Amino acid sequence: MTDKLFLDDLHVGQRFTSASYVLDVDQVKRFAGEFDPQPFHLDEDAAAKSPLGGLAASGWHTAALTMRLLVGGGAPIAGGILGAGVEILWPKPARPNDELHVVSEVTAITPSRSKPDRGIVVLRSETRNQHGDVVQVLTSKLVVPRKAQAPV
Amino acid sequence: MTDKLFLDDLHVGQRFTSASYVLDVDQVKRFAGEFDPQPFHLDEDAAAKSPLGGLAASGWHTAALTMRLLVGGGAPIAGGILGAGVEILWPKPARPNDELHVVSEVTAITPSRSKPDRGIVVLRSETRNQHGDVVQVLTSKLVVPRKAQAPV
Repeated sequence: MTDKLFLDDLHVGQRFTSASYVLDVDQVKRFAGEFDPQPFHLDEDAAAKSPLGGLAASGWHTAALTMRLLVGGGAPIAGGILGAGVEILWPKPARPNDELHVVSEVTAITPSRSKPDRGIVVLRSETRNQHGDVVQVLTSKLVVPRKAQAPV
Repeated sequence: MTDKLFLDDLHVGQRFTSASYVLDVDQVKRFAGEFDPQPFHLDEDAAAKSPLGGLAASGWHTAALTMRLLVGGGAPIAGGILGAGVEILWPKPARPNDELHVVSEVTAITPSRSKPDRGIVVLRSETRNQHGDVVQVLTSKLVVPRKAQAPV
């Protein structure tokens, strides 16, 4: 178990790799049925004729699984993973039976001017499948606490 | 049932309003348990002491429910809602028992130069609770087909 990291423990260029997770076809259809009921996420035949060229996970499912992998050790941030905002690109869809993992890199660290106990960290997280293809790029602005300072 | 809209049917400033959806506490905890198992999404007491000041839905849950409302009529786009990329802000968390709806506005339309049968539409979607508070701003780049042209 990695110790959780405070703002003071992070540096630009620091990288983290998550565990991996295998997505199965039932999960793809169940998530899509609840949140993104479009034919290319639900039905093999309809998906084959769609721009996605075959059954594909909802991008929101890929995003939610990425969060699961980050929370499960892929981004060991003190105080939890609390995002103020994100950008997401989906260069390729995730497919049933893909084994996904997330490789993250700290790309910026900005201590807060008004709140000396915290700062904003920009984390760029690539979600990759078993072939190394990037299925999602998530850029997150995270609120990260500083270590408590000893009184002077 | 609204007819689905092609690129030719859309104009900048066009707005759509979705149906509404009530989020309950069991859904908040179930989604978080599967995808975002952090104390402020799972446990009332821990959440009360967290920066969120009480139990809150995962931002990814808010995003997934927003997609459900868009697919369910909140963005009647021909060919389905296929995003190339998105930006998300979460100005406030969604809370258990919030009634959410989504108000969307077309903010840009760019016909493709290389593919004359489609274009990119930027849709800005505010997810609002029953008090009118904005809990999420989603800006999506959507691939939207043109109507088939009659041969000349």
